[in-house]
Amino acid sequence: MTSTLVLVRHGQSTWNLENLFTGWYDADLSERGRAEAAAAGTAMLDAGLHPTVLHTSLQTRAIRTADIALDEMGLLWLPVRRHWRLNERHYGALQGLDKKQTTEKYGKEQVFEWRRSYTTPPPPLDWDDERHPRFDARYADLPPDVLPASECLADVVARMLPYWFDGIVPDLKAGHTVLVVAHGNSLRALIKHLDGISDDDIAEVNLPTGVPMLYQLGGDMRPTEAKPLVERYLGDADAAKAAAEAVAKQAG
Amino acid sequence: MTSTLVLVRHGQSTWNLENLFTGWYDADLSERGRAEAAAAGTAMLDAGLHPTVLHTSLQTRAIRTADIALDEMGLLWLPVRRHWRLNERHYGALQGLDKKQTTEKYGKEQVFEWRRSYTTPPPPLDWDDERHPRFDARYADLPPDVLPASECLADVVARMLPYWFDGIVPDLKAGHTVLVVAHGNSLRALIKHLDGISDDDIAEVNLPTGVPMLYQLGGDMRPTEAKPLVERYLGDADAAKAAAEAVAKQAG
Repeated sequence: MTSTLVLVRHGQSTWNLENLFTGWYDADLSERGRAEAAAAGTAMLDAGLHPTVLHTSLQTRAIRTADIALDEMGLLWLPVRRHWRLNERHYGALQGLDKKQTTEKYGKEQVFEWRRSYTTPPPPLDWDDERHPRFDARYADLPPDVLPASECLADVVARMLPYWFDGIVPDLKAGHTVLVVAHGNSLRALIKHLDGISDDDIAEVNLPTGVPMLYQLGGDMRPTEAKPLVERYLGDADAAKAAAEAVAKQAG
Repeated sequence: MTSTLVLVRHGQSTWNLENLFTGWYDADLSERGRAEAAAAGTAMLDAGLHPTVLHTSLQTRAIRTADIALDEMGLLWLPVRRHWRLNERHYGALQGLDKKQTTEKYGKEQVFEWRRSYTTPPPPLDWDDERHPRFDARYADLPPDVLPASECLADVVARMLPYWFDGIVPDLKAGHTVLVVAHGNSLRALIKHLDGISDDDIAEVNLPTGVPMLYQLGGDMRPTEAKPLVERYLGDADAAKAAAEAVAKQAG
């Protein structure tokens, strides 16, 4: 028996639009992002997919994408599980800066390194910086030493995978069709794991916003079939590919 | 240590507006209902209340009320638990009829009895009636013999209370400020239990739509203080009272 997993990266946010490093800042969807979320719902309906449980991060842009998509499908009533481990990569001191500011401040090469290196995190937020997650009510029940102040993609993999194994896999094993609505980097981390992508090659993987990606998993919780990511897109494949390429040019 | 419980009846639905018996029909909010939901959020904010977990029924009008209210409060990310035991009373064969049709078909006294009697359910839906909950995807995992085909308020109390004890009380005991967004009759059932209201007196209790009601509970999960329901309303008390009186005149 195979398990069905659908991944959706949230629609465009107001900060994506302005090309700011967003990370754990709680930007909401832009108007285009809302339209992308509705289109994600339509694409799942058209593909005959009926999720039976939803997992989201704790960030508004993912939650609202899920709510809009499920509303489109008449599935607002799905059981919902939210977890901070599905949050976007924390961009540390870059959070809130735009690409131009960052380049001026740190130099082009350094910024490229932070954006694309698997193992180099940006400078961390100071412990007392008001942007530090320990000041955010949604993380109030977590010990502050588990909260990131900056992350590279390797850090995201390390903090996301426990939720994959402990939170999502049990739902798949129970027979659920699982919908995960999360972020560019938390989903890249998951896809890296699922498809066994190398630390180098993951730099070239960009996810389109609001395009559902379909995985059929075997009992080992690995894809039953290896295939390029673009073949997992639901809906208009060309539009999704163009969207992924556009994303590659953004700050993230 | 006391526990904080906030109850909100969903805002006006499209079927409330048309004065139809709604029950388990999945009517959405009217425009007024959406405004009431936002006002519920503002009333909680103004009262300094910060729920830390949300419980809703599986019905869209309650889910959307909660989503709009929490969005207003910047709390879209709250953990959510949904359960069918918080659903509205099932109105059986009356579902979808308006008050006038029902009176013509069954007579005024009989309809009054069904609306206000604690122990007399309306005629049940036939097993093969397309309105039977067994045909609704959201109940697909439940054995059909647990699903109601008609309910009196006593039936609602019997099916709601297990969720109070097993689903909501553990969250209160864990220190959560619990927000329950549900329906006129599932909340009347809960209030009947909490305030120890008699089978006769509950007939006179009407809940306003979209007005948060605040309970402080002791370790025995009973109100620390007995008081009239109107004194539990948050926001504009006079408006809430008028709303409750208007509701008393509706089909339910």
